Amino acid sequence: MKEVMAIIRFNKINITKRALVDAGFASITMLKTMGRGKGNVDYLLLAGAEGGHEEAISQLGPSLKLVPKRLITLVVPDDQVKTVVNTVIEVNRTENHGDGKIFVMPVLEAVRLRTGERGEDAIDSVVNVL
Amino acid sequence: MKEVMAIIRFNKINITKRALVDAGFASITMLKTMGRGKGNVDYLLLAGAEGGHEEAISQLGPSLKLVPKRLITLVVPDDQVKTVVNTVIEVNRTENHGDGKIFVMPVLEAVRLRTGERGEDAIDSVVNVL
Amino acid sequence: MKEVMAIIRFNKINITKRALVDAGFASITMLKTMGRGKGNVDYLLLAGAEGGHEEAISQLGPSLKLVPKRLITLVVPDDQVKTVVNTVIEVNRTENHGDGKIFVMPVLEAVRLRTGERGEDAIDSVVNVL
Repeated sequence: MKEVMAIIRFNKINITKRALVDAGFASITMLKTMGRGKGNVDYLLLAGAEGGHEEAISQLGPSLKLVPKRLITLVVPDDQVKTVVNTVIEVNRTENHGDGKIFVMPVLEAVRLRTGERGEDAIDSVVNVL
Repeated sequence: MKEVMAIIRFNKINITKRALVDAGFASITMLKTMGRGKGNVDYLLLAGAEGGHEEAISQLGPSLKLVPKRLITLVVPDDQVKTVVNTVIEVNRTENHGDGKIFVMPVLEAVRLRTGERGEDAIDSVVNVL
Repeated sequence: MKEVMAIIRFNKINITKRALVDAGFASITMLKTMGRGKGNVDYLLLAGAEGGHEEAISQLGPSLKLVPKRLITLVVPDDQVKTVVNTVIEVNRTENHGDGKIFVMPVLEAVRLRTGERGEDAIDSVVNVL
């Protein structure tokens, strides 16, 4: 099992939820975070700021300002990681700075509290969604 | 060392804190999250909704609605993982959908900022609580 | 790659951000958390409470009270973990209870959503900051 953690734009949370559920990954956890990426001025960032993109503007210069982000995380079987990653990329890539990142981390055990099921039986991925 | 992360009902946070502290696990971190499980209609969920359980009702149908959850996490020595897991199960299992999940993740290093202690010396589990 | 997660005093977030960015670690994510450490009465905690330290006072006795904390996390190449850890220690150690902890966790993969870059190319550490 792996944890797939995506840090995305706050206005991408609904489309990301929808895409994951449509792909059969229904069990998700969402946290509100603040974050920043490189934050150094480069031509893409400048272009973004000139284009009026709020996140680009807020990252210009040596500012330490953090911008609101959403962190969405789910635990899936190893063979589903690629599908989750591609699903998240598809709906989050705008090609502007601030699109966010995905990290994949190992998970040693999972327990479903309701039933006591362990391991992959405890995680809900790839269920049939009405 | 392992991180034990439990995603539980928001109204179970106090009883879970109490149970962990009583078991000697005093160092805990809590985050407010939103989440959902399978969310597909099955007979247990329907029964829960018919019984008036708010979380079951909110998960009926193809809704994407997230419900408030609490994430509680602590880092403990390997040989204490089982005790933590069982402690969390004991106070969180209602046998209704939405009870939550536990995930266990590897931790490579811990540092106590106050003293610079490393490894298991840096974590506080199994202390005597007055 | 490793995730370095620091749980620190809420009033240390700005100095920690500044120190990390100055050290070239610009990509950070911050979460608001509640937490507690050992919480058992010992002479250092008593001394802190007698000195008027709010966090020490709030942890006296068998209280379960959680205090506001900040969780700051970043993913860096293996050979940068030590620098990040030392940077966080330097600005967070007050030698009073409640300074917080650092945990280091394995990361298997990283993806930059904007470009699709993977692995260390996807993480921004050690950039030049203006």
